[in-house]
Amino acid sequence: MWILREDEVSAIAVGAGILGAGGGGSPYLGQLQLTGLLREGRRVGIMPAGELQDDDLGCGVSGMGAPTVGIEKLPRGDEMWQSVHAIEQHLGRKFRFLVVGEVGGGNAIEPLIAGAYGGLPVIDADPMGRAFPELQMDTFMIYGVRPWPFALHDPQGNSAVFGPVDSAKTAERIGRAATVAMGGSVALALPVITGGELKSYGIHGTLSLVHRLGRAVEVANRQKDDPIAGIASVVPAQELFVGKVVDVERRTTGGFARGRLQIAGLGGYQSENMQIDIQNEFLIAYRDGVPVATVPDIVALIEEESGLPLGTEALRYGLRLTVVGIPAAAKLKTERALAVVGPRAFGYDVDFRPLPGDLPEAALQVAG
Amino acid sequence: MWILREDEVSAIAVGAGILGAGGGGSPYLGQLQLTGLLREGRRVGIMPAGELQDDDLGCGVSGMGAPTVGIEKLPRGDEMWQSVHAIEQHLGRKFRFLVVGEVGGGNAIEPLIAGAYGGLPVIDADPMGRAFPELQMDTFMIYGVRPWPFALHDPQGNSAVFGPVDSAKTAERIGRAATVAMGGSVALALPVITGGELKSYGIHGTLSLVHRLGRAVEVANRQKDDPIAGIASVVPAQELFVGKVVDVERRTTGGFARGRLQIAGLGGYQSENMQIDIQNEFLIAYRDGVPVATVPDIVALIEEESGLPLGTEALRYGLRLTVVGIPAAAKLKTERALAVVGPRAFGYDVDFRPLPGDLPEAALQVAG
Repeated sequence: MWILREDEVSAIAVGAGILGAGGGGSPYLGQLQLTGLLREGRRVGIMPAGELQDDDLGCGVSGMGAPTVGIEKLPRGDEMWQSVHAIEQHLGRKFRFLVVGEVGGGNAIEPLIAGAYGGLPVIDADPMGRAFPELQMDTFMIYGVRPWPFALHDPQGNSAVFGPVDSAKTAERIGRAATVAMGGSVALALPVITGGELKSYGIHGTLSLVHRLGRAVEVANRQKDDPIAGIASVVPAQELFVGKVVDVERRTTGGFARGRLQIAGLGGYQSENMQIDIQNEFLIAYRDGVPVATVPDIVALIEEESGLPLGTEALRYGLRLTVVGIPAAAKLKTERALAVVGPRAFGYDVDFRPLPGDLPEAALQVAG
Repeated sequence: MWILREDEVSAIAVGAGILGAGGGGSPYLGQLQLTGLLREGRRVGIMPAGELQDDDLGCGVSGMGAPTVGIEKLPRGDEMWQSVHAIEQHLGRKFRFLVVGEVGGGNAIEPLIAGAYGGLPVIDADPMGRAFPELQMDTFMIYGVRPWPFALHDPQGNSAVFGPVDSAKTAERIGRAATVAMGGSVALALPVITGGELKSYGIHGTLSLVHRLGRAVEVANRQKDDPIAGIASVVPAQELFVGKVVDVERRTTGGFARGRLQIAGLGGYQSENMQIDIQNEFLIAYRDGVPVATVPDIVALIEEESGLPLGTEALRYGLRLTVVGIPAAAKLKTERALAVVGPRAFGYDVDFRPLPGDLPEAALQVAG
């Protein structure tokens, strides 16, 4: 068991910002809160899925809502844990573990806060290896874990437990409507999952991965080295573009931050432009109109000045940045998964054009 | 205990159509279904609140959503009971009774169907003595019964249990959003209530009242007598207008059927017009621009040809009708209640101008 140290939190936030593809919410508030909890003496352990028994019962946890709302609506602190606890009460059972609902952005931090509150270990895995805008876009849902019961809990303490629901898409539709009515940014406990299911369908080692990724970037930035090289030392990343933001079209609608980003090229890209389509996350990057990175592959924006990743909510005119492409985890690139998370699932008439390689996944070492 | 007979169902539907003020949903489908259940040998008993022990636990039940959707979306049958059962499971307790969530329109019938499915008696009382568009507009909520947990259940079997919520208005906001996402017409189980609370805050005898009211109208229609006189023999009703529908402005928006009805006068009203403002229910009737009936008093429309009440969903150009005003129950006319159900609570800059009298309420005879 990896007992999280206070000085490891910022690296997780940076790494999750990169894999988050702009989504998952700003990690800033969560980072402050988790650091504070650890300083107070609370502990949270991170555990490989291989150490679970197949019939151990646990629960996924993440935020639901638009990142543009998440940065304006202060969390109360315990809502992530309360959303999990609402399901424990509903089922009349205690969970043995938590699992990260999506390892992107602030959603990598929130389960660690829930674990620190609830005294439960957080498994070193997630069902995305990135962030996605909708609830059904998740290897647990895609490969058949039941999408209910699930719970929402808002910072005012309002709570709801949903289920039965006839599909993960129905869960998304009803949950999204409730999220908007609950203020646009809430805690989501989903799914209830066994150790066996998690071992089969999870993307393993992603909390360790975002930690290594963030540390490599932090070290590069501290040494005035290239952060992109730091990223590429941990995952098979490639530079897609370097430029300056010339237009941000972004609106918060239907519980999502949707929009389009225009970047004018700099340096070797001076005569070119890049457009990136957004739905909470950066979904498709077009260079001079040609798609060069497509969902589920990860499009990350690294700001030149800070050397740090940018979330959807932080975009503004004039920012100079490098666009980086990182291949998705293999479990997101099967035919079954692409039907849910490929470009056509988002309404684009574009084929998935995989970047080379896969997001590295930890080998599952089964205990005993 | 009044064991409901098959031949009593239509009178309840007619009476509930009158007190429903156009809302509560069409009773037609529910009437067919309840009649069918009774014909199959199922039974449902209707019991005065006075026979309850103060610590008996029960639950309110009604439909939630726009009546314009309710007539287009066929119920599955058992969703009312399933919504109640979801709360039983959530609490780990069995209920002893059901209570009508609103005695207007189809919502007077639905709890009887739930009672027939669940084998529970339905109390002869409700918290409105009419229908209202929003969940907090209810004497149980107004006088302090806790608005959670509450459950929604849709005809596809999707279900959700809500709570804690910080107020009845929050319950309305979140529940309404979920209702829309669940297709716009769902079963609502609310509130969980004790026998003692029901005795204190309920409007008593309203199921018996709608039955008597409907029977009086059915008898008058059968004998080619005036149905308005039939209504007035049971409740203190007054004729407000007679005319022909010349315009119906109606849209289903935000989970409500909203609109405005224009009626041109006939007979003694020939030189006059009436406008009625609608939000699921008929809220305010203006004669030549002057409010002559204001919510919470009841505005009922009786169609000339059939002698039967019209729901919001049935309005159309050319219908000839009589507009009838019926005073609300006394518990809706306190200062505390008018803050929630008076014209200003609906956004109108109009004072409540009470019609003479009160909706008759049964005396509470405590058993034993």
